[in-house]
Amino acid sequence: MQFLSDNAAPVHSAVWDAMRAADAADTPYDTDALSRELDARFSSLFERECAAMWVATGTAANCLALASMVEPHGGVICHEEAHIEMDECGAPGFYLHGAKLLPAKGEGAKLTPGDIRQVLSGITRGIHQVPAQAISITQASEYGLVYSAKEIAAIAKLAAQYGLGLHMDGARFANAVASLACAPAQAAGPIDALSFGFVKNGGLGAEAIVVFDPEKAEILRWRRKRAGHLQSKGRFLAAQLLAMLDNDIWLANARAANTAAAMVAVGAGDRLIYPQQVNELFVQMNPAERAALRKQGFSFYDWNDASVRFVTSWATDPDHAAALGKAIAAL
Amino acid sequence: MQFLSDNAAPVHSAVWDAMRAADAADTPYDTDALSRELDARFSSLFERECAAMWVATGTAANCLALASMVEPHGGVICHEEAHIEMDECGAPGFYLHGAKLLPAKGEGAKLTPGDIRQVLSGITRGIHQVPAQAISITQASEYGLVYSAKEIAAIAKLAAQYGLGLHMDGARFANAVASLACAPAQAAGPIDALSFGFVKNGGLGAEAIVVFDPEKAEILRWRRKRAGHLQSKGRFLAAQLLAMLDNDIWLANARAANTAAAMVAVGAGDRLIYPQQVNELFVQMNPAERAALRKQGFSFYDWNDASVRFVTSWATDPDHAAALGKAIAAL
Amino acid sequence: MQFLSDNAAPVHSAVWDAMRAADAADTPYDTDALSRELDARFSSLFERECAAMWVATGTAANCLALASMVEPHGGVICHEEAHIEMDECGAPGFYLHGAKLLPAKGEGAKLTPGDIRQVLSGITRGIHQVPAQAISITQASEYGLVYSAKEIAAIAKLAAQYGLGLHMDGARFANAVASLACAPAQAAGPIDALSFGFVKNGGLGAEAIVVFDPEKAEILRWRRKRAGHLQSKGRFLAAQLLAMLDNDIWLANARAANTAAAMVAVGAGDRLIYPQQVNELFVQMNPAERAALRKQGFSFYDWNDASVRFVTSWATDPDHAAALGKAIAAL
Amino acid sequence: MQFLSDNAAPVHSAVWDAMRAADAADTPYDTDALSRELDARFSSLFERECAAMWVATGTAANCLALASMVEPHGGVICHEEAHIEMDECGAPGFYLHGAKLLPAKGEGAKLTPGDIRQVLSGITRGIHQVPAQAISITQASEYGLVYSAKEIAAIAKLAAQYGLGLHMDGARFANAVASLACAPAQAAGPIDALSFGFVKNGGLGAEAIVVFDPEKAEILRWRRKRAGHLQSKGRFLAAQLLAMLDNDIWLANARAANTAAAMVAVGAGDRLIYPQQVNELFVQMNPAERAALRKQGFSFYDWNDASVRFVTSWATDPDHAAALGKAIAAL
Repeated sequence: MQFLSDNAAPVHSAVWDAMRAADAADTPYDTDALSRELDARFSSLFERECAAMWVATGTAANCLALASMVEPHGGVICHEEAHIEMDECGAPGFYLHGAKLLPAKGEGAKLTPGDIRQVLSGITRGIHQVPAQAISITQASEYGLVYSAKEIAAIAKLAAQYGLGLHMDGARFANAVASLACAPAQAAGPIDALSFGFVKNGGLGAEAIVVFDPEKAEILRWRRKRAGHLQSKGRFLAAQLLAMLDNDIWLANARAANTAAAMVAVGAGDRLIYPQQVNELFVQMNPAERAALRKQGFSFYDWNDASVRFVTSWATDPDHAAALGKAIAAL
Repeated sequence: MQFLSDNAAPVHSAVWDAMRAADAADTPYDTDALSRELDARFSSLFERECAAMWVATGTAANCLALASMVEPHGGVICHEEAHIEMDECGAPGFYLHGAKLLPAKGEGAKLTPGDIRQVLSGITRGIHQVPAQAISITQASEYGLVYSAKEIAAIAKLAAQYGLGLHMDGARFANAVASLACAPAQAAGPIDALSFGFVKNGGLGAEAIVVFDPEKAEILRWRRKRAGHLQSKGRFLAAQLLAMLDNDIWLANARAANTAAAMVAVGAGDRLIYPQQVNELFVQMNPAERAALRKQGFSFYDWNDASVRFVTSWATDPDHAAALGKAIAAL
Repeated sequence: MQFLSDNAAPVHSAVWDAMRAADAADTPYDTDALSRELDARFSSLFERECAAMWVATGTAANCLALASMVEPHGGVICHEEAHIEMDECGAPGFYLHGAKLLPAKGEGAKLTPGDIRQVLSGITRGIHQVPAQAISITQASEYGLVYSAKEIAAIAKLAAQYGLGLHMDGARFANAVASLACAPAQAAGPIDALSFGFVKNGGLGAEAIVVFDPEKAEILRWRRKRAGHLQSKGRFLAAQLLAMLDNDIWLANARAANTAAAMVAVGAGDRLIYPQQVNELFVQMNPAERAALRKQGFSFYDWNDASVRFVTSWATDPDHAAALGKAIAAL
Repeated sequence: MQFLSDNAAPVHSAVWDAMRAADAADTPYDTDALSRELDARFSSLFERECAAMWVATGTAANCLALASMVEPHGGVICHEEAHIEMDECGAPGFYLHGAKLLPAKGEGAKLTPGDIRQVLSGITRGIHQVPAQAISITQASEYGLVYSAKEIAAIAKLAAQYGLGLHMDGARFANAVASLACAPAQAAGPIDALSFGFVKNGGLGAEAIVVFDPEKAEILRWRRKRAGHLQSKGRFLAAQLLAMLDNDIWLANARAANTAAAMVAVGAGDRLIYPQQVNELFVQMNPAERAALRKQGFSFYDWNDASVRFVTSWATDPDHAAALGKAIAAL
């Protein structure tokens, strides 16, 4: 009964089927019929024109998306616990050629305009200090919290005011949409680029970079190639994305993961550090309690001395989730 | 009847089976059971200790391998028509942080010690000129020619003499081994790192970086992550590599591709610019002849005004190859 | 009566004389007689073998020095208000190819082993997080405080324990030596590289990078050239450094600056946020008081809402310093 | 009697005087009165609006200028013997973050539109190949030849047609202007940026980057800082440039160097590989003849097996030049 992460979950059967169906030789790289379908499909999903490109990992998606907004001497405001700051081994520094992440504080790993202004207000030394050129927010956040359309709009307004690009790390964007129960366009808001995660949500090895200013997308095609991310059998990545979009599997999978998390949350009750919104839970728990749960067959990560993290996935067995909820309640 | 390239060929059924078998959740990144098997399997194949890592593309494999040998201020001697020089959109400049490729001339896109010395002899300006730190050779070469064990040994000797790393771009290493009919260890020779291609040869999206100095491999683990190439479901990449090694499918596939090329070569006869050794043929042909072939249903690339290129793959239908051979002979 | 900064102070007459004396043509770059003298002179000063190179700015000195210790995927622990973090427009990101600064908190912009351990203890995610490879400390610190030999030794011990390089930003190293009243070797301690500042202290445009592992210095010669910092008339930079070392002008100048600061400090009394140790003072002052001082002809920077900064230089008129001290006392 | 290079020549007395006059403390970096004068002075010289910035070396000037035109994934067409290709230790790769130099062949180290088209015609592989984004030409060329206004106009036309930036490496721009006997605006032509050399021509350590699109200059201010080239006592660099412009000393010095070269050229006669236009001569000479000249006290570099190089400077003693001319004639 695994609640460690959603990042190694199985692949959805529809994805397997679509990949097998793409086996017949087609043209290489992103010139195949499936890859050429992406722009239209994502434009339809987001109800506005965009360019969409596959890439194997969320790290590459985030960094390439940011490369369309940030010069080597620029900076990216992000939460101090954002994935790009904490978990990508300096990939943004590599992809952005030394550009600097400018960490902001914010409750629940979310940022408010006030949090962002705090960083901006510290940039006072002109040419001697890295200028902010973009903001990166995470939907849902590292603590499993979602941004409402209104919250994103407020950040976008600030970004426009300061001439900053706005990027959304959507490794769990599907879970956020499911949680917000709104249109994808609402959950994304007026951002410039989105890293739309599919791997955690039933894919095998394909994420989408969605760029809402198609002109800016051009540079990413070069940068993707240059980063060794233009796979020659790209049709298999396109197939994954399209299979997930077909019949809204992406949304159904995200709902399943969220629902499983909700079942755990019921049992966690007041132990929850943040309200359950998507598929990550941070739960106060002492060492003895952790040991007790593990003895019952539940696996999960210690987050810090005071709490543990549970993550559900699209493939989490609801019975396991229910069992975990009960087990926590019984502690 | 497609002879454009091997880079978009279908995926071998054993690879599909192995990937499906890897579906059950395992630990993420390269901590899964399959990924952890790679070092031993490749060490066994090459009859000496090495570290082996999966990565999605040959470009990433080449660049990461070189990153273990070359500092940002250094240079890499390679053939002026090498893939890293001509076809990777400057990826080595990106991965090596501005290090410079130092192009050498050489017959058939192969390099001899003399060709390499030619470049070395031009490096005379001390601190003002980029110092060579590595040599990169391609097995088989861009013109489909293989290096014998003796030829590689001579280059390795020169590399050692000048303190240079030695990298082999083995996008078609399997075809070279099949052609040389020798052990992989012989076809690789005393190199420091090998980009061992599997994608063209029946894989889906997994190449192997093989580093023969395991200590130097350490840096690549960081660099792979930093380049966004550490896929979270890495088990599916490991599964591809292992499936190809099992039962020597990699070798059988390469032989099939080479055999198909040989069937075409028979028909091409004196038109061949280089002898057929692997699965690429460069054939003299005028525009009218090209048109005639295309009219018969053969697709292939114009190489230049005087010649065209035919590439076979592991999945090329022998009947198609025979038909092409006859069609050329009949021109 | 200027107390804004020491960075635009006049050039010492001995420096002018030495530069003029170097006018006769010599060999270019760093092959001239003066440049070739540097290693020996600094080795003698520091009582151990080192390599010393001129460079035009402290930013270049810091970044090149760090380039001898840090790989592109590595990190540098430094104070969150260190010059490399706050005032160099991301130059470390440029020179270190995207390596990350890892900011630590510490009283008075100094770091203790405990402060550094705090950062190290947060690096727990293996390959997913930037590994620390060096520590950079500033002597004297951004708040004008010096490290004792004992304090540096404790940090060096920690660095050795974790296999980290140890760099000292010595933009005001001379002032620190003067304050500590010890040998330069004591004020530097067992570090790996020092950016030894001369520009603020009477030079025109020459700082010294001092590398205590001469083997590691080699890479810096390439990197300096590659950064466009190998000036063709390098003899004029060497001349500056040698002139400052001759007759211990560097020390006399630093003492003069420190003494002037002490005269101001006497007047500042309890308003001082940190004890006066070198030539920078941070003084609590309200807006009305600031205006009053400025009306009397004193220029200085506001530091924040609560305090102002006074900086003296080797050329500060003692009468001005005394006057400022009195004026503050009289507020 | 030194004819090795002009790069270590003495500093002109007017430059020394101007530097001393700038000693009085002013504001730091490029906020001083002298630095603020540069835009206007160079705009006047070039008869059109431009931004002008000091920097210590030609390498930094070239690389920063190119950074205003070339993205990290782009390429710069330059002569295969250009300084940026041969003599800057990969600095363009560093400053341009891995962008690639695309070497062209051309007589006398000059490029014609045809030479450039030759490179452009080889860029056919779309996303797989580095796209050209700029052209860099050298005025005067590495073989001492100048571009006429008409020749530059033809290249500029080609650049415009392909949307390429146009950079001029003017390390010896003054010598070219003197040789062409035209206005600086004519000798520069409709380029986007010029590295205007002063160091070889009587300066100490200051070159000018002249950017004709002031908007593009903005990025260079950040990049200069980030490269550690924003000297705090920048007033001394501005003083050098202004002193050289005053009374057209830059032009008088260049004429003196050219005249000295002409005196040598008279003696060299048919031995000259290229006609004398500026202050560099390449002269056919066998080993015995070289030895004979050196015995007479002339120092110079061997260029290759067949020829030697003589370089005069603004400070070359005309008697030495005459003597060398006679000595060569007498061989």
